[in-house]
Amino acid sequence: MMRTRPLKVALLGCGVVGSEVARIMTTHADDLAQRIGAPVELAGVAVRRPSKVREGIDPALVTTDATALVKRGDIDVVVEVIGGIEPARSLITAAFEHGASVVSANKALLAQDGAALHAAAEEHGRDLYYEAAVAGAIPLIRPLRESLAGDKVNRVLGIVNGTTNFILDKMDSTGAGYQEALDEATALGYAEADPTADVEGFDAAAKAAILAGIAFHTRARLDDVYREGMTEVTAADFRSAKEMGCTIKLLAICERSKDGASVTARVHPAMIPLTHPLASVRGAYNAVFVESDAAGQLMFYGPGAGGAPTASAVLGDLVAVCRNRLNGATGPGESAYAALPVSPMGEVVTRYHISLDVADKPGVLAQVATVFAEHGVSIDTVRQQGKDGEASLVVVTHRASDASLSGTVEALRKLDTVRGVASIMRVEGE
Amino acid sequence: MMRTRPLKVALLGCGVVGSEVARIMTTHADDLAQRIGAPVELAGVAVRRPSKVREGIDPALVTTDATALVKRGDIDVVVEVIGGIEPARSLITAAFEHGASVVSANKALLAQDGAALHAAAEEHGRDLYYEAAVAGAIPLIRPLRESLAGDKVNRVLGIVNGTTNFILDKMDSTGAGYQEALDEATALGYAEADPTADVEGFDAAAKAAILAGIAFHTRARLDDVYREGMTEVTAADFRSAKEMGCTIKLLAICERSKDGASVTARVHPAMIPLTHPLASVRGAYNAVFVESDAAGQLMFYGPGAGGAPTASAVLGDLVAVCRNRLNGATGPGESAYAALPVSPMGEVVTRYHISLDVADKPGVLAQVATVFAEHGVSIDTVRQQGKDGEASLVVVTHRASDASLSGTVEALRKLDTVRGVASIMRVEGE
Ligand SMILES: NC(=O)c1ccc[n+]([C@@H]2O[C@H](COP(=O)([O-])OP(=O)(O)OC[C@H]3O[C@@H](n4cnc5c(N)ncnc54)[C@H](OP(=O)(O)O)[C@@H]3O)[C@@H](O)[C@H]2O)c1
Ligand SMILES: NC(=O)c1ccc[n+]([C@@H]2O[C@H](COP(=O)([O-])OP(=O)(O)OC[C@H]3O[C@@H](n4cnc5c(N)ncnc54)[C@H](OP(=O)(O)O)[C@@H]3O)[C@@H](O)[C@H]2O)c1
Repeated sequence: MMRTRPLKVALLGCGVVGSEVARIMTTHADDLAQRIGAPVELAGVAVRRPSKVREGIDPALVTTDATALVKRGDIDVVVEVIGGIEPARSLITAAFEHGASVVSANKALLAQDGAALHAAAEEHGRDLYYEAAVAGAIPLIRPLRESLAGDKVNRVLGIVNGTTNFILDKMDSTGAGYQEALDEATALGYAEADPTADVEGFDAAAKAAILAGIAFHTRARLDDVYREGMTEVTAADFRSAKEMGCTIKLLAICERSKDGASVTARVHPAMIPLTHPLASVRGAYNAVFVESDAAGQLMFYGPGAGGAPTASAVLGDLVAVCRNRLNGATGPGESAYAALPVSPMGEVVTRYHISLDVADKPGVLAQVATVFAEHGVSIDTVRQQGKDGEASLVVVTHRASDASLSGTVEALRKLDTVRGVASIMRVEGE
Repeated sequence: MMRTRPLKVALLGCGVVGSEVARIMTTHADDLAQRIGAPVELAGVAVRRPSKVREGIDPALVTTDATALVKRGDIDVVVEVIGGIEPARSLITAAFEHGASVVSANKALLAQDGAALHAAAEEHGRDLYYEAAVAGAIPLIRPLRESLAGDKVNRVLGIVNGTTNFILDKMDSTGAGYQEALDEATALGYAEADPTADVEGFDAAAKAAILAGIAFHTRARLDDVYREGMTEVTAADFRSAKEMGCTIKLLAICERSKDGASVTARVHPAMIPLTHPLASVRGAYNAVFVESDAAGQLMFYGPGAGGAPTASAVLGDLVAVCRNRLNGATGPGESAYAALPVSPMGEVVTRYHISLDVADKPGVLAQVATVFAEHGVSIDTVRQQGKDGEASLVVVTHRASDASLSGTVEALRKLDTVRGVASIMRVEGE
């Protein structure tokens, strides 16, 4: 049964993502109406530069006064694709106050203020959906929140940033260094002029916070996520990884502790075995691996960014939110009842690959091994390589806490025979 | 806000899947209550053999009278994990009539009578959910139905039967023949004593019907799905596949035609390039590749069967259906508005790999090539191999309709110089 009065949508932002949302709303209008049960109408489009020509958008709909648009009172759904904290936050809050539900793609805002925004949505009986905020087109929020709602998720391990995956994949396949691979990513449009948010892991950390929150029914914020960028990964690291049958990926990892009483969330480059499904995720693609008690190992794979893919996720949410409105209901809101503590990085337990430059003389290995033992870090393998009076030691450990490993490294640096710690890389996915 | 009156669940069937549903409902009761907003209570368990000892199940709940259980009138949700057409169909229909929503894992029933069951659900304002019916634990129905609701799906390409994937993977990795690999699958519990439903593709065809229906918003039934089993795949086929840089998988393929005006659904063994993400799906795992206009290429991967994984999907649905009930709403029902015609196999367009046994004399290739040309099937590559007076010709075609290919093969069989058609295999995923 089709309702004839259309649902009104306010689009905030009409850039890479917003322009695709508007385009699909127009080209797929009939399908959307059938799937929702009522037509949807673009009621206004807020932008910064009103004079910019926007193909397919009725200029009469364009405004620079986003605030007035969300406060009109006849808007059913606000789609926020401006990005950043302000004015997005105030606009979303105003949307709820004026009776609209909200679909957003804004990971930065959700990771910082998700709890407050969810509370505002709930207070006003409205929906806040944001599938597009994590891994673009890949259905991930909805599967975690709904499909796995009867299961217990223990770990989420994902490649959630396409720019850095493109760079690391380049380094892996061509032997290029970081700067060279970054330059290529920039030239091809995979990296922005200022790539900081991507290469320093801020973008992935925001997504890790959102994923941890949903997976563990626990509030997690950007500040709770340990973050290490990938700018210091070298061609030599890739050679070491290959020797171990691994590659290097920038991973977002959310884990429940063994006793189940706490969780951790972190983003850093890590070695993973070539046999792991994440190892073969190429180019700018994203993929997220989920481990749960009953379902076991699941993987979700697809394009993590781009106008059309991200718009696909936004529109899936738009359909859901519109259906909820017609039903007079709301979808699942924030679920933070478990309220597990988010432990600091020191408590994370994993394996490590450490390269040391050492003096090439007898007894060095014994000295180094003693330091590991004193800190309770058990060694899996050691490889010694001599080169003209200097030598290098490559140590791969068994599972140990980050705190023990840090203590070990600090003590190693103090040894006369250790000239330097060339690299420390975590080993994941085993 | 937690409601204290529990929602009552009737479990029909307590076998491989049902026993895990019951177990998780007990062990995860607190989490389920939090996620739903009300406790859920197992109100009755219908089985065939009442005296069988069932760990963790209160014997007082067990009954052989499934009909009386669904007609009690106080049941909120019926979980049907008996399987087969009857009595499952009558029980589900009775459940709707008596006010319950239904969660089912029954692909055979859904593929045969999905439309009627959806109509019954809608008539009574109840939900019918069945995530577990396709690819076990892998969230697939919900992503297709909800996450991609704002997109246009063009193709679904999946490995949706774990038994056959186990067998084909074995044949690929060890060079074993079909019977040997089947025997191992049986010994390890991956194949049932009567493996017909799996190896003849009936199970995958039921899933293809369900997937096509949801992906294309069109009614599709088991009868609409072209089906070819994998019992005739040989070790020689795998050698041919390897020479082409391919492996062989039993695929369920649902496609929109190029002009968008019709769809097809089919299950058959096919060669796919080793570089395709589906090629590396090992053992009994399932994976489904989805291509859509805006999202591009997505893949969903995980365990396609087993008690606990399937129960995970059932419980995700249970949580959703319970939430809907508390909201006084229903989730998305059948969406068949597009009502596209399902075309017969003859109209499917793909590539083919054909092995012919031919006489080893001059002019044979010219004769064979002429037959292809006469039927409008364009040849990509031909490889000739001589062996003691006999020879074989391996032809790989460009894209052609199944009808043209069938015509070609029929004509080839009539040539004196063609001793036999050793194998015909479709080539997909390019
Ligand atoms: N791009 C992706 O691939 C991708 C993927 C996943 C998620 N996202 C998220 O999607 C959101 C949008 O990203 P995007 O790439 O589409 O950004 P974008 O191309 O920079 O577009 C931003 C849009 O917002 C408008 N805008 C900026 N400030 C405004 C203000 N104060 N009032 C009204 N409008 C304003 C801009 O107007 P003008 O057009 O006049 O400049 C522009 O249309 C971000 O949260 C981002 O993280 C993006
Ligand atoms: N097993 C899997 O991995 C899997 C995966 C995906 C989907 N599924 C689907 O899930 C459903 C159940 O599969 P399953 O493997 O759990 O089957 P199963 O192990 O054979 O269990 C069937 C259950 O139904 C009961 N039953 C049979 N006939 C009955 C009747 N007339 N009235 C009441 N109870 C009856 C049986 O009772 P007794 O215990 O007394 O024999 C048994 O408990 C099927 O639709 C199947 O296609 C299964």
